[in-house]
Amino acid sequence: MKIILIGASGTIGKRIQERLAKKNEIVLASRSGADIQVDITDSASIEKMFNSVTGVDAVSCAAGPAKFGPLAELTEEDFYVGIRGKMMGQVNLVRIGQGYLNDGGSFTLTTGILADDPVMGSAALSLVNGAVNSFAVAAAMELPRGLRCNVVCPTVVEDSAEAYEDFFPGYDPAPMEKVVNAYVRAIENKITGKIIRIY
Amino acid sequence: MKIILIGASGTIGKRIQERLAKKNEIVLASRSGADIQVDITDSASIEKMFNSVTGVDAVSCAAGPAKFGPLAELTEEDFYVGIRGKMMGQVNLVRIGQGYLNDGGSFTLTTGILADDPVMGSAALSLVNGAVNSFAVAAAMELPRGLRCNVVCPTVVEDSAEAYEDFFPGYDPAPMEKVVNAYVRAIENKITGKIIRIY
Repeated sequence: MKIILIGASGTIGKRIQERLAKKNEIVLASRSGADIQVDITDSASIEKMFNSVTGVDAVSCAAGPAKFGPLAELTEEDFYVGIRGKMMGQVNLVRIGQGYLNDGGSFTLTTGILADDPVMGSAALSLVNGAVNSFAVAAAMELPRGLRCNVVCPTVVEDSAEAYEDFFPGYDPAPMEKVVNAYVRAIENKITGKIIRIY
Repeated sequence: MKIILIGASGTIGKRIQERLAKKNEIVLASRSGADIQVDITDSASIEKMFNSVTGVDAVSCAAGPAKFGPLAELTEEDFYVGIRGKMMGQVNLVRIGQGYLNDGGSFTLTTGILADDPVMGSAALSLVNGAVNSFAVAAAMELPRGLRCNVVCPTVVEDSAEAYEDFFPGYDPAPMEKVVNAYVRAIENKITGKIIRIY
């Protein structure tokens, strides 16, 4: 398969890349330094990306900015960092990409446990994660030509558990292998409209 | 209690008003023709509303625009109708209102079943509903001075079941009494961080 992977430099993304590269042709996409350039906060940039790569079977996104911070201090603009980034960035990948992917192709988006189980400071990020979870299930019902859409929704992952331990007190980290398996399952199995929770 | 009710002219709002008015002082807020004027898509307007009413114990919102339509036709701007409206409108009521409500006061927001169970054409609305559900649970953890935040999340309601029957095929309508009870429960009971699903 030919798979566009967005966010391959991130904690989860680099593990996905390692695994998927064994059996697939991976096209890395990011704001800079990848095979193709894309800024997912800009729908024109997403459109340009899809126009520059043909024959794509899957898009996997493990990227998208959002703002962490106390509710008492979050400005409206702080919320919009996540709305334009991790939320509409991923929505636009599906909305625009539905016109480009090969029949039966798939979108695999990324959210996280904060959609269901918030922590202190997560209000803006919980909003984004909850939005993308619900969107993905809805979008899956309407995608044409057998296209599929799923979300991987992990708890704090093993590789970043130490860095985030103060934000996720008492959260059991998700093993990287299990997280990566979820992406593989969403891409290679014919499921759609699933939120794959790894809590 | 002194309760600001936003959206009292709507299907659910007018029922909430009937019930709450029996025991409480209701301040109706809407874009026009109410006790006070507010455009919840505009945070300056929300700020002005809170500055114009003192001693508020509860805010109940059953309003907020969002766009219904096929995923294949929804533009990015169509998504932003709901993001600025039903999503950030309700987020901003909490974000701004946390500085104004009386101690122990409550925010009761409104979403709907499309967060969990989409129908054809609901992608943008599912996004908004999922976002507000997750936000409310997260916000509840951080609100100061015993302030509370809950969401009423009904399926299609009885009073609009006929108008929407083509969009919600086979959905059992929620009795209005049960929907209104959820708002009363959220306001008068000391619960917080709850998504009251009425499916």
